[in-house]
Formats: sequence, C-alpha cells, structure tokens
Amino acid sequence: MTAYADLMAHQRETQALSQVMGRLGWDQETMMPRGAAAQRAEEMAALEGVLHSRRTDPKVAEWLESIDAAGLDEVGRAQIRHIRRAYERASKVPAALAARIARVTSEAQGTWAEARAEDDFAAFAPTLTEVLALKREEGQALAASGDVYDAMLQDYEPGTTGAELEAMFGALRPELSKLRAAVREAKAPPQLTGTFDEGAQMKLTRQLARTFGYDMSHGRVDKAVHPFSSGSGLDVRVTTRTNPTDPFNCFYSTIHEVGHGAYEQNISRDYLLTPLGQGASMGVHESQSRIYENQIGRSRAFTGFLFAQMKEAFGDFGVANAETFYKIVNRVSDGFIRTEADELQYNLHVLMRFDLERALISHDLQVADLEAAWNDRFEADFGYAVDKASNGVLQDVHWSVGLIGYFPTYTLGNVYAGCLNEAMRADLPDLDADLARGDTTAATGWLQQSVQQHGGLFEPREVIEKASGITPNEAPLIRYLSQKFGDLYGL
Amino acid sequence: MTAYADLMAHQRETQALSQVMGRLGWDQETMMPRGAAAQRAEEMAALEGVLHSRRTDPKVAEWLESIDAAGLDEVGRAQIRHIRRAYERASKVPAALAARIARVTSEAQGTWAEARAEDDFAAFAPTLTEVLALKREEGQALAASGDVYDAMLQDYEPGTTGAELEAMFGALRPELSKLRAAVREAKAPPQLTGTFDEGAQMKLTRQLARTFGYDMSHGRVDKAVHPFSSGSGLDVRVTTRTNPTDPFNCFYSTIHEVGHGAYEQNISRDYLLTPLGQGASMGVHESQSRIYENQIGRSRAFTGFLFAQMKEAFGDFGVANAETFYKIVNRVSDGFIRTEADELQYNLHVLMRFDLERALISHDLQVADLEAAWNDRFEADFGYAVDKASNGVLQDVHWSVGLIGYFPTYTLGNVYAGCLNEAMRADLPDLDADLARGDTTAATGWLQQSVQQHGGLFEPREVIEKASGITPNEAPLIRYLSQKFGDLYGL
Repeated sequence: MTAYADLMAHQRETQALSQVMGRLGWDQETMMPRGAAAQRAEEMAALEGVLHSRRTDPKVAEWLESIDAAGLDEVGRAQIRHIRRAYERASKVPAALAARIARVTSEAQGTWAEARAEDDFAAFAPTLTEVLALKREEGQALAASGDVYDAMLQDYEPGTTGAELEAMFGALRPELSKLRAAVREAKAPPQLTGTFDEGAQMKLTRQLARTFGYDMSHGRVDKAVHPFSSGSGLDVRVTTRTNPTDPFNCFYSTIHEVGHGAYEQNISRDYLLTPLGQGASMGVHESQSRIYENQIGRSRAFTGFLFAQMKEAFGDFGVANAETFYKIVNRVSDGFIRTEADELQYNLHVLMRFDLERALISHDLQVADLEAAWNDRFEADFGYAVDKASNGVLQDVHWSVGLIGYFPTYTLGNVYAGCLNEAMRADLPDLDADLARGDTTAATGWLQQSVQQHGGLFEPREVIEKASGITPNEAPLIRYLSQKFGDLYGL
Repeated sequence: MTAYADLMAHQRETQALSQVMGRLGWDQETMMPRGAAAQRAEEMAALEGVLHSRRTDPKVAEWLESIDAAGLDEVGRAQIRHIRRAYERASKVPAALAARIARVTSEAQGTWAEARAEDDFAAFAPTLTEVLALKREEGQALAASGDVYDAMLQDYEPGTTGAELEAMFGALRPELSKLRAAVREAKAPPQLTGTFDEGAQMKLTRQLARTFGYDMSHGRVDKAVHPFSSGSGLDVRVTTRTNPTDPFNCFYSTIHEVGHGAYEQNISRDYLLTPLGQGASMGVHESQSRIYENQIGRSRAFTGFLFAQMKEAFGDFGVANAETFYKIVNRVSDGFIRTEADELQYNLHVLMRFDLERALISHDLQVADLEAAWNDRFEADFGYAVDKASNGVLQDVHWSVGLIGYFPTYTLGNVYAGCLNEAMRADLPDLDADLARGDTTAATGWLQQSVQQHGGLFEPREVIEKASGITPNEAPLIRYLSQKFGDLYGL
C-alpha cells in the first residue's frame, strides 16, 4: 500500500496549500489593507501556480495507476474517486486556456462592476461573450463528446445533469409562481422600522453563531461586504454584514454562513486535510446553509427565541409580539435582487438563471439578447418589471468570473434541505419546543450525524438519500413552502 | 539577458510565496482561532517545503552561472548578490539537517516555555544542548573552514564578524555600566500611576502610527501578545499590545514596530517582490525601529506632544507638566527583562547574550554552567542579582528556536541609530520644533531618503555609512546616551 500512502501524503500537502489559498481569500475580504490588492494578486497567482502543478503532477497519475482500488476500504475508495476526478479535471484543460480564463475573468469582474454601476449591459456584453467562449472551450475539453453544460455542472455538483435539473426545476417553477402570485394578492405583514446599533448586531450575531453550534475555537465571525464561509477542518471562518436598518440581514447572513461553516467543522477529523475533508458538493453545502437559515432559523419556534433576544439587545423595537415578529421575518416582498430575496422568490431567481445560462452555452441564446430575455422572464415569473440593469441582468458577479453551472446548486440546496427537513422533523417530533428555547442541538446534531460528518465520503445525492431516506426531489420543498406561506398569508 | 529575466521571474514568485508565509505568521498571532494550531503547522510546513525547493532549485544555479554580473547595472548586481547568497545558504545545509532543526526547535520552544513557567533551567538544559549541537552542525556546514559563529551571524547581519562586534561592544560596555551606576545613585523620577482605557490606548496608538508616517492603506495595527512587524511592499502590518497600567508599552511598541514597518513600506517600489525589496539586515532594521522609538519618540520635544495627546485622550492623569512627563517616559528602572528595559539597560542585556552565546558555540562555556554565568554577569553589569530563572537565563525565546547570532543585531541597531541620529540632527537643526508639534515628516523623510528607500541595494554597514557619513562605531550612541541621561539625572 506504499503508493496509496505516498499519494495521500502528496494530497495532504496539496490540501494544506489549498487551505492557505482560502485563507488569503478570507484575508482579502476582511483584513487586507486596501492598497495591497496588486501584491495580493501576485501572491495568489504564485500559489495557484504551485497548486496547479501539484494537481497535474504526473506522479499522481502513476500512483493512481498502480493502486488497486478494489483492495481499499470504503474511505480509501472514496479518496481515490475524488483524487481521480480532480486529476482528470485539472489535466484535461490546457494550461494556456486555464491561464487565459484566470486573466480574462479577473479583468471581467472589473468590467462587470463598472457596467453595473452605469446600468449599462451593452458595456459588459463583449466581455461576457469572451468569457462564455472561453468557458465553452473549457467545457468542451472537459466534456469530450458529452454535453458541455453537463461537464460544467460537475465542477459544482458531481453526478448531476442539465436534463435532471430541468425536470426538477420544471416541476418547481409553476408551483412557486402560483404561490408567489397568491401571496401578492394577500395582505402584507408589517415591515421592521427603526435603527439597530451595528455593534450590538455583531454581538448578538456571534451569540447566534454559537447557538447554531458554530465552534469559535475553530472559527471566527467578521464583517465583509458579501458574507461567505471559508476554510475546512480546524479553521473555518465566516463573515456577515451589518446595516443599521436591517438587522435580519446580519443575523440570517450569519446563520446561513454558519450552516456552511458548521458543516466543514463537523466533518470527521479522520478526513482532515484529505479530499474527503470537505463538503460533498455545492448543493449539499447549500442544503446545510439553507436548512440552518430557513427551516430552522426562520421557523415560528426559533423566531420566538430571536424576538426575545432582540428585545434584550435593542429594547422595545416596535414589534408587538412574537407572532408579528415571525410574519415580519418571513415577509415576501417585491424585490429585484436574488441575495435579498425571500424563500419564495429566491428559487424563481435561480431557475431563471439556470435556463438562461444553459441557453447561452448551447448558443440558443445570444449575449446580445440576454437582457431582453432576462427582463421578459422576470416579469412573467415575478409579476412586475425590472427597472434597471443593476436590478436585473447585471446584479450577480457569477457569470463575469466564469461561474457557469453554479447557480442551480442554490436551488438544489433548497430541494435537498426540503428532503432533510421532512426526515428531521419526523425523527425529532419535539424539535419546536427546543427551538423556542433557542436550543438547536437536536437539529444540528441530527444534521451532523446524518450529513455533515461524512464530508465527501458519498456522492452528493447519495448523502441526501442516506440521510433523509428520500430520493432527492422537489416535492418536500413545495410542501414546506406551501404550508409555511399558506399559513402565514392565510391562503 | 534572458537568463537574468528568467531568474528574476522565478525570484518574484518565490518572494510572493514568502510574503504568503509571513501573512500566515501574522494571522497566527492576531486572528487565528486557538484550535487551529495543528492545521496551521501543516499548512506552514507545506509552504515551507515549496519555498525550500524553490530556493534550492538547480535552475537558480544554472541561471547564476550563465549571467555575467559585470554586464548588469548596480541594481542588477545587487539582486544577483542577494540571490547568490541565499542560494548558497540554502544549498549548503543538508535538507535532513534543516528538517531536523525545524522539528527540534519547534518542540524546544514548548520545552523552554514550560521550563520558564517552572523557573527550572535544568529542565531546559538538555534541549538547549541539542539545539546548540544542531545549530553548530549547521554553522559548520555554512562556515566551511571559517568561524562557526561568524557564519551564523551572516543570517542576520551579512558582512559582520564576531571579532568586529566584540571590539565595538567591548568599547560600549564600560561606558554603559558607568552610566548605569551613576543613574542608580541619582534621584529617581516619579512613576506613572493610574489606569488607562485599552480602547483609548489603541485609538491613540493608531494616531501615533500615522504621526510616524505609517501608511494605513498598506498596513494595519492589531494587538498581539508580542509586538512584531510583518510583510514587505504593499502589505506591511504591525502589532502592539495594551496593558491598562502601562500605556507607554502600547505607544512605544507601536512606534518601534512602525519603524520596522515604515522601512518596509518606504522601500522603492521598483524593488517590489524582488530580493532588494526588504530591509538590508536585522541591524539596519533595528536602527529604524530604535531611532523612531528612542531618538525621535522618547525625545524631550516629541514627549511634549505625546503628553498633550494623552491628556486629550485620558484627561488629567496625574502628571503635572511636560518636563515631568519626559522624565517618566525615560525613567531608568531596576528590571530583569530585556524587552521591558530602558535605553541604558537594553544594550547591557544584549552584550551579555552576545558573549554567552558565542562562548556556548565555541564550547568555551557549557550549557550546564550557563545559568551561573548569566547570573554572575548580570550582577556585575546591572548591580543587582537575578531572583529567578524566568527573570534571567530563561527569559528569551531566541535560543530555544535556534536564533544564535540574532541578539547582537539589537545593539548593532542602536549603534547604527546613534550614527544616523547625529547626521540627521546636523542636517535638520530645527527638528525639535517640528517634533514638539508632532510633525515627524522631516525626520522620517530624512530616514526614507537616506536609508529606507534603498532596501537591500547596499550592504548593511554601507547603508549606514552612506546615510550618515560615519563609519559605524559606538561613539555616537555613547555620546547620545551620556548627554540624554546625564541631563535627565543631573549627572
């Protein structure tokens, strides 16, 4: 078994260096002095070069060749599966193309930000066309004779296909649209008013992180413009943001990111710095962040606890009782922005992006027609028109940086969370009594045992199926949303 | 000139990765969650492996071989000098020995910390013996037929020798001892009393950093247990500490570290991420931190400004006037700890360590006799006896982690600062008027022009000689200390 041991030692160093890369990204968004960007770019490029040469090292192929996977245990076979996939992925893309994508997308992000500031899609279109051409070329290298978009999906959700997602999302969309339309007809709950001290928000948000089982001895909570979670194993950091008039943004960003962060913290320590020592996929990751944020965090029971916490932190803030607070937290609003969307609108946003990016990659949609296609689809699904490009086609950074095939994992995460939630609720009939006291240990313990501890041991859908006993499908999510918003809006 | 361009491109990536390593060190001391140490050790070891293989890459030797340095300009020749020195240094030490030193010193630091906590030198002695044996072996590999201690010095102060330092320090020691004894006979100034809010200390300390020209767009000030400066070029961070009863510790730690940090920030941007893009040596570095801290920061003129700033930050804190404040800031105390020592005692500490470590390396002193030798020497030079090992031979981490030849650069820095200060004062006759207003621009501008901008372009002593017109020697430091403390203590 020397080849396996050698391969794993090589992987361990690669994983360690990859963690360093993640830490640089965290630092850039939280601590880095503003004048350091140019130097940081060189530092990250140098480290990326090291990582790329390790990932495509011919020794890896030799080790893989000489290892008889059948002679390994389940963990060993899963390690080999990840290593083989990553090696093939890295080796199939010509280095010159990878470098060109890195350079073009780095510049494209700036072009996109300027175009967004000017609400000028035409200024971004040529750049997007170039990014799509490069990503298509990369997808072709990865796909060989298969579907290019499917090949792209594998970077984020191994094992899934565009056709599968199309079927799932196709069943989801009319239900969401119908529910959304009914909610728009119903009486809207009140909105939160007043201002909330940002220092007190951060204090309470750190308490909430602990409430959700986030381990501060292996993590920390800082502010960033766009909240994220970063790192694996013994050092998993999350960020949030504050807005004096919108404390929910702070608290639910934290709970969401803590879902990601706790997942990474709770993976079996046996997998530390190995390919299994990370979440199974973007979709499974999002299932954890979403179930923490929504099915647990925005439940009637937990918002009752949060209401009391907020009264303690901020005094009387003009909300009469826990039931009204629950309605305010779950208020459905006419908005344009995905990252600010409620549970209902969120998936409509994602479904739209999935269809549009898939059509772009297949050439069924031209970049020149993208803005019109976006605006038409938005009005059809949301019931009102986009007012400007920054509220529409230019709102997300993803396409500019070459993230194609990433969007669908957001809704896939919600679909997975729906399955997990039904199983968890069945296993834990008294959960609401716990949550009302701010005790999430039964819920987070169930998720740790069922999902999180396994890291990358199973394939993404297998994780959900093993944990929930449900073959992943959209019905539980539809049931959950229909019941929750039907109840909230008296439908 | 292709070989030169290729070599410099290789160096640039190495420098960038080396900056990443420094950033990990900074993070470890300021931001890292306490449970992440084991993972961080693996991350740093993996990155150290990458750096080591780059530093000993045979391609570097080939490039060096094929470049005709005579055809290069002054900058190119200096780059080659640094690259050649670093390559030879890295290549002369067998990889197995380097790895063993890394492992043993990493463990030795823990053993030292435990022994210090127990005031038990005997518990540390076997470990120190092992560290010294390994460092001696390394020194022999580096020295070839030359002096082993001299070879060690080159890691910190290229171009200096033990004999040179012995002569310089030998002239310094009796003068310092004499001055110290006279001060002990004189009437002591009062001490600071009361407590000082730590948040207000950090606020004022950041103002002081700016006052000394530290560029916050390329740096930041955080807290750490042991203050340090970290990074080069566009991202140079400093740390300080707070103690409610000792605000001077915070302010002068900051000013000291800002001396190091501003040096790195002020190096010509032409040298960014090249071997010249760092301070010339530990001694020259220390000259900057010391002149910021002492000759400028603890001058009568500047303490007048600081007195006003502190009154603004803390209100009346029981010091009647600026002259009393000046005396308090510069109070000479009977202490045991180098890092807390005043300007007079500090160098006596260093001279003692220099003599002891040199004797240890040459086998003239055995580890078993070190504690007695320390205590005898301390009483002779300071005038009172060491009370326990943690206040004596166990106080510094340096020897445990294999830093032999490092201590003398502290006093060398003070000697250099003495030379620079005489020249700067001659060039800037109205400096005190500026400093009294808290305007350091003339002083820091003089240092930037004379010393800092050049980075590693010149050899250490050459830097000081070009800047000050003085061949580095101890006389200016003796004149400065005699005048200052003679005046303060009415000698």
